[in-house]
Amino acid sequence: IDLCGPSVPFLLGLEDQDVHQCDEGWVPVYTSAEKKLAVMSIGFLLKNRSDAVIWRGPKKTAMIKQFLEDVNWDELDYLIIDTPPGTSDEHITVMECLKTVNTDGAIIVTTPQEMALEDVRKEVTFCKKTGINILGIVENMSGFVCPNCSECTNIFSSGGGHSLAELAKVPHLGTLPIDPRVGELAGTGKSCVKELPDCTTTEVLQKIVRTITVGAE
Amino acid sequence: IDLCGPSVPFLLGLEDQDVHQCDEGWVPVYTSAEKKLAVMSIGFLLKNRSDAVIWRGPKKTAMIKQFLEDVNWDELDYLIIDTPPGTSDEHITVMECLKTVNTDGAIIVTTPQEMALEDVRKEVTFCKKTGINILGIVENMSGFVCPNCSECTNIFSSGGGHSLAELAKVPHLGTLPIDPRVGELAGTGKSCVKELPDCTTTEVLQKIVRTITVGAE
Repeated sequence: IDLCGPSVPFLLGLEDQDVHQCDEGWVPVYTSAEKKLAVMSIGFLLKNRSDAVIWRGPKKTAMIKQFLEDVNWDELDYLIIDTPPGTSDEHITVMECLKTVNTDGAIIVTTPQEMALEDVRKEVTFCKKTGINILGIVENMSGFVCPNCSECTNIFSSGGGHSLAELAKVPHLGTLPIDPRVGELAGTGKSCVKELPDCTTTEVLQKIVRTITVGAE
Repeated sequence: IDLCGPSVPFLLGLEDQDVHQCDEGWVPVYTSAEKKLAVMSIGFLLKNRSDAVIWRGPKKTAMIKQFLEDVNWDELDYLIIDTPPGTSDEHITVMECLKTVNTDGAIIVTTPQEMALEDVRKEVTFCKKTGINILGIVENMSGFVCPNCSECTNIFSSGGGHSLAELAKVPHLGTLPIDPRVGELAGTGKSCVKELPDCTTTEVLQKIVRTITVGAE
């Protein structure tokens, strides 16, 4: 529901896909023939990848409601909603729409530098004020290992996710390093879990998924 | 006017400052006794740095109008407006408010990876559709020089700002590398131009400022 910057179709290599209508509503885009992962994004509705969605809040709210109510999601195990940064229309609308159903909670992603933590503290306050359970905090872009000399530099400082989790009294789910190999996979439709089974990113991601799914059962 | 994530007070080391009222309106916060730089941010109006602004579009629009109309800005050479990412309420409101006065234009900042360029292409479309002149594109976080072995790695790929500028037919103002020393200065109120006169960031920033100010005269 990042209507102004929908990156999910690009990340999953689905940019040329279209959403179709059926009697039950919109048919989401599937990443494979096995139909394991269904995706809906405003990116599929734009004719051109440089098209801008120049909408004020009420129009964004109406579209988000359609994504939740008018998409033929079929039977789902998990519904993952990716939001833009902030605590405004998108977040308020999702919170209100999901009030009537049981949600597991929110995963908050931050980068480690103090400036990002400033903003993410506000996201934590949003969740607490609106009664959304926080599943935990993930620290992304933490530390870079030089491919030449293997020296690890904490480019954007480090430990911010951990200290924020302590402050907010929520679990710290994991710390993801910067790995250019993972970035290169973006847009190819390939997953680092399959392509780079031994890298730290894969290890941390799998640990995070295990923690969350066990907690949800 | 990034109302949900106001970072400017932190970046300038002004977090403990308050905005006061005078007969002519709000008095902005000055960074020094010489009153060279006046700052206004919703950050000054929040009691606590973790407070969240949970507002839908119309309330954000009203606050932005106040920032432009009710602040006693005095005589200004330049008014710089920092926006959040996106093409929604904040951007539409600023564009409408500034229609009646002459603006020099917009500076678009991107990071080099394809995913960021996806979003920034939409910002370019926004400016073109709404008739805002684009002064140019700055590529930030481009390349990281290992402090141990001096090997430069293009962590998030590179050249994206340049190719986007070509595509959009606007000037490419400069390419800023990742420098942990510059990041450390954030929040101290110190400037890399003064503290690190020989670093690439300083050199590129000064070139960008020269290009923009010469163009504006």
